[in-house]
Amino acid sequence: MDLLKALENRELTQVGDDLHRFAADLYPICRSITGDGVRRTLSEIRKLIPLQTTEVPTGTRIFDWTVPKEWNIREAYIKDSAGNRVVDFQQTNLHVISYSTPVHATMPLSELKPHLFTLPDHPNWIPYRTSYYEENWGFCLSHDQLLVLEDGDYEVCIDSTLEDGHLTYGECYLPGQSTDEVLISCHSCHPSLANDNLSGITVATALAQLLAPSDLRYSYRFLFIPGTIGAIAWLARNADEAKRIRHGLVLTCLGDRGEFHYKKSRRGDAEIDRAAAHVLHHCSKSSEILEFSPYGYDERQYCSPGFNLPVGCLMRSVWGSFPEYHTSADDLNFIQPGQLAESLRVCTAVVDVLENNCHYCNQNPYCEPQLGRRNLYRSIGGAAVPEEISARLWVLNLSDGQHSLLDIAERSGLPFGTIRDAADLLREGGLLSLTAGFELLDRNQIRP
Amino acid sequence: MDLLKALENRELTQVGDDLHRFAADLYPICRSITGDGVRRTLSEIRKLIPLQTTEVPTGTRIFDWTVPKEWNIREAYIKDSAGNRVVDFQQTNLHVISYSTPVHATMPLSELKPHLFTLPDHPNWIPYRTSYYEENWGFCLSHDQLLVLEDGDYEVCIDSTLEDGHLTYGECYLPGQSTDEVLISCHSCHPSLANDNLSGITVATALAQLLAPSDLRYSYRFLFIPGTIGAIAWLARNADEAKRIRHGLVLTCLGDRGEFHYKKSRRGDAEIDRAAAHVLHHCSKSSEILEFSPYGYDERQYCSPGFNLPVGCLMRSVWGSFPEYHTSADDLNFIQPGQLAESLRVCTAVVDVLENNCHYCNQNPYCEPQLGRRNLYRSIGGAAVPEEISARLWVLNLSDGQHSLLDIAERSGLPFGTIRDAADLLREGGLLSLTAGFELLDRNQIRP
Amino acid sequence: MDLLKALENRELTQVGDDLHRFAADLYPICRSITGDGVRRTLSEIRKLIPLQTTEVPTGTRIFDWTVPKEWNIREAYIKDSAGNRVVDFQQTNLHVISYSTPVHATMPLSELKPHLFTLPDHPNWIPYRTSYYEENWGFCLSHDQLLVLEDGDYEVCIDSTLEDGHLTYGECYLPGQSTDEVLISCHSCHPSLANDNLSGITVATALAQLLAPSDLRYSYRFLFIPGTIGAIAWLARNADEAKRIRHGLVLTCLGDRGEFHYKKSRRGDAEIDRAAAHVLHHCSKSSEILEFSPYGYDERQYCSPGFNLPVGCLMRSVWGSFPEYHTSADDLNFIQPGQLAESLRVCTAVVDVLENNCHYCNQNPYCEPQLGRRNLYRSIGGAAVPEEISARLWVLNLSDGQHSLLDIAERSGLPFGTIRDAADLLREGGLLSLTAGFELLDRNQIRP
Repeated sequence: MDLLKALENRELTQVGDDLHRFAADLYPICRSITGDGVRRTLSEIRKLIPLQTTEVPTGTRIFDWTVPKEWNIREAYIKDSAGNRVVDFQQTNLHVISYSTPVHATMPLSELKPHLFTLPDHPNWIPYRTSYYEENWGFCLSHDQLLVLEDGDYEVCIDSTLEDGHLTYGECYLPGQSTDEVLISCHSCHPSLANDNLSGITVATALAQLLAPSDLRYSYRFLFIPGTIGAIAWLARNADEAKRIRHGLVLTCLGDRGEFHYKKSRRGDAEIDRAAAHVLHHCSKSSEILEFSPYGYDERQYCSPGFNLPVGCLMRSVWGSFPEYHTSADDLNFIQPGQLAESLRVCTAVVDVLENNCHYCNQNPYCEPQLGRRNLYRSIGGAAVPEEISARLWVLNLSDGQHSLLDIAERSGLPFGTIRDAADLLREGGLLSLTAGFELLDRNQIRP
Repeated sequence: MDLLKALENRELTQVGDDLHRFAADLYPICRSITGDGVRRTLSEIRKLIPLQTTEVPTGTRIFDWTVPKEWNIREAYIKDSAGNRVVDFQQTNLHVISYSTPVHATMPLSELKPHLFTLPDHPNWIPYRTSYYEENWGFCLSHDQLLVLEDGDYEVCIDSTLEDGHLTYGECYLPGQSTDEVLISCHSCHPSLANDNLSGITVATALAQLLAPSDLRYSYRFLFIPGTIGAIAWLARNADEAKRIRHGLVLTCLGDRGEFHYKKSRRGDAEIDRAAAHVLHHCSKSSEILEFSPYGYDERQYCSPGFNLPVGCLMRSVWGSFPEYHTSADDLNFIQPGQLAESLRVCTAVVDVLENNCHYCNQNPYCEPQLGRRNLYRSIGGAAVPEEISARLWVLNLSDGQHSLLDIAERSGLPFGTIRDAADLLREGGLLSLTAGFELLDRNQIRP
Repeated sequence: MDLLKALENRELTQVGDDLHRFAADLYPICRSITGDGVRRTLSEIRKLIPLQTTEVPTGTRIFDWTVPKEWNIREAYIKDSAGNRVVDFQQTNLHVISYSTPVHATMPLSELKPHLFTLPDHPNWIPYRTSYYEENWGFCLSHDQLLVLEDGDYEVCIDSTLEDGHLTYGECYLPGQSTDEVLISCHSCHPSLANDNLSGITVATALAQLLAPSDLRYSYRFLFIPGTIGAIAWLARNADEAKRIRHGLVLTCLGDRGEFHYKKSRRGDAEIDRAAAHVLHHCSKSSEILEFSPYGYDERQYCSPGFNLPVGCLMRSVWGSFPEYHTSADDLNFIQPGQLAESLRVCTAVVDVLENNCHYCNQNPYCEPQLGRRNLYRSIGGAAVPEEISARLWVLNLSDGQHSLLDIAERSGLPFGTIRDAADLLREGGLLSLTAGFELLDRNQIRP
């Protein structure tokens, strides 16, 4: 089954517009690591894909951590002495530090100022700040806003609650022929920030939509979870499922105009690492492969030494490397439909490699088979003709049961799709058979 | 035994002239994958080296292939309406497409033209074409010739036969101390084309002449075979012999002025791959090592997955990369005596490495032996003195039974010959002994 | 235990001055591979560190070698016909070829000249020459001195003895928690040559002084031995001790202004090789790692195939690569206090890696532990704060019992000291435990 062709059958502009529209729907919601913002986000996703929601009570021990109190917020503002709202949560949820404790008081500017945060280098932008594990309150605003505040008393209101409740995460499980799993994970705890990480949420959702109707070799598990604490919660509650993860991707920052970056898993040579590197090498103009490091997104947890799962992280621009990161400038204009669509295409191509990366045995291993009398010098139009013939010779030469199609693609320098097409053709021609243990890969038994 | 010294004892100019003269003798013969042209070629080779000829009947199944009909040709021409031979096989056998079926007819130019092939980009050159597995007839001519053909009727004659017969190949077997074999293979199916592959045939013949009188560690098998179908025929009929092949070289395109190219075996790290790379690094001004690919010459068959033999391919210019390839411009001027002689020297140096690549044990492994009192700081004139001393220290240091002389040459950066000379001297001095299992390598037991 | 901090507690200028002063004390002594010059040198060293002296009698068989006669010299000169000492051993001991046999005769210049050696390219410098294994006598002088010698008779006197006696070497053994040994070896057979090798002797002595009061994981053995014959003698007499050597360094040419060079052991990937490369990468502006070769200093013997010990060689400039090498220009001005001190610092840093290179197990291997509630985001001031945090995350991530701290330093790109500090902090916090088999490394059980 050629997942990429399924994607390419759709108008790519339309795909990008759909992705961006969904991001726009989710943008205004005030998400945090707990609370109703997460629940609303998950219910929007559930309109598109099957999603199971889990609620983990405050206080639950999850490895070295404890599920925190649930945070919700209704309203927040700063009023000047004339009663004007000079900062207003209704304008953007970034104005309030996430997990701010409730406050309602009047105070002079001098007392208020330690609770105000700005970005002097980008005076128009509002920073994004959190205070999850230290109880505190505060406002974020543009530096320009701060400069015009005059001395005097201000009414400060944050109508929030920080109480026992739940941590909520969403899970979309697509069963395949095997119980072996592919994990796709994205964090869903950021408020109005588009690239980080509505782009990851929308691409993951669209990928799940694309895979849902397919007969798949692997089972797929999509996680929409609050960063760090959510991954820890899921891993703590799903020891058996975690053992079944064969490959995984963390998706984030997939809407900006930067080139692609793939950060390898801790293992460094896992099949997902090679598949992602191969796809980026052939699919994109330029891209960069990064070595694993123990900082970043939830790969930190999946790749902790007790799990050491083969999970990498796919991004366009790397978190922290672009000035818009964690500011109000990471908005819906910062992510573009075409870029989101291209990210979905790359994710799909990676999944396509995983799904089709089987081992074949050449049924005529002694000398080359005579391709001419089998009409196997013909083009099937998947690639330039010399490349098609070359791919067939490579597949025949290396199909000794020891080389996967990805091995062959890497050694030949040809794109995986060209190698896979060659293998399909040779197999139809009776020249290849799947090696034992890979029956699941028999794509002829899969409904088209 | 130092094969290179045997070669260098002869005047190199003389060696080159002999090679070129032999190529000139073979040049006019109209070879194809079967037929009397091959037989005549083999009988010329048999004048120089012991050669056994094998005839495989048409219709014989050889793996996935069938031995084709035998093709022979006596005469061919195109006459214009005035009776002038405007194209004449007597001028060059390239004029007729190899395996052309017989034809004798008169037809207008318009009807003839689909059977005429030229090279518009090289209007003076005649292309080389074949039609082995599709019955057809045709002529190749220069584009200039084509342009002056006037409309009118032409008498076309190809006096050929395509009938049940035999596929013929030649084999020169030189028994050595071991039944382990070194394979030297070249294709002998091309008509008047000098670089591809009279150069390979002549260098292989001269190498066999050079090795025949020597006491050799390995047995050597030289194959003069039609490309593809000949290699397949030999492999199909010699399963046991194939299992004894420890190293192998396909020789082709060895007469042009290009730098050397060695294409690695499918294994990529076979001893022949390392030996050839080492020799080219030290023997030639510049050279290139190519990774294996499943297209090219008969290494395709030797390296098919069922055999996976350690057989590489030595060339100067790579087939298809020079404009003269498969045209009349690949003639006797395109190959030069000096270039052929240098190719023979490189082949000999590679064989010299294989023959002498043994493992020694230092008999004084604890600290250095005292070289001074054994007069082992003296020069024997094989290399610059500091290099000679350095080679002796390297051989002593790494001769722990685990490192072959080629290992030592590679690690020290010194030429194999310098390392081998050092080992010979140290062994004479009682400081080295051959490791068990390498008795065959005892060159002292070999007659000089 | 942080050896570097112990070193850095001292004024580095003072350290360098002490090193240079000790070199100056040893400089005038006429050392050779045997004789009283060696004994006087060892007795100077014994004033600073515990040193055991061994006397091996002339004629003792040591592997392939025999301990030579002992050489001593009292006086030597050349007097012209007017009775002027034109060459005088009292001026510099380089004037006499080491191991010169006694001579007292009067001869014309023409007869004397074959016994005179100069450096025409450096007319002010006196060469250093030896004739250990061939009985001979001769003088070294500057080319300028030679040029002014007029024809006529000269009185030649070398008041030396070459008689049965002993070969003397010194050994400083510092017992640690383990009987596993670290070898530090330097040659002590050169007369008035400063870089080669008073620099090695003084740095080794200072390193022993630094280590002596410390509780050490390994035992340390410092050898002060005549080059080649001394190393062979020690190895021949200490088979059991040699088997306990886990890491080793030959120290030489450590006082000049050149960049550092580390020559790897024959193994090439020994822990000492990686430790030295790591330290040089992080400790010095620029440095070079050299592959092993079987020429150089006593690593030749330690790395002979029968021993194959993990012993490398640390130098600044490489022997033979600087013009002052083996001439009177390798004097006390050629080595500088700051350079000697920096060399001691590098040696100490390498030992610090060996002492602290343990394997830990993360006690919270499933997901990251919560650093915040343990106050583990705090700085301890060992490095820049982000680097400190990064080091902690790396140590937690890779401490699976398979990765040593050096492995973690290499993979993270962080200096070993930063990684070690992080491990110490995490261990105090209960997040790490030493893997079984590394109890010796428990630095908490070591007195400060």
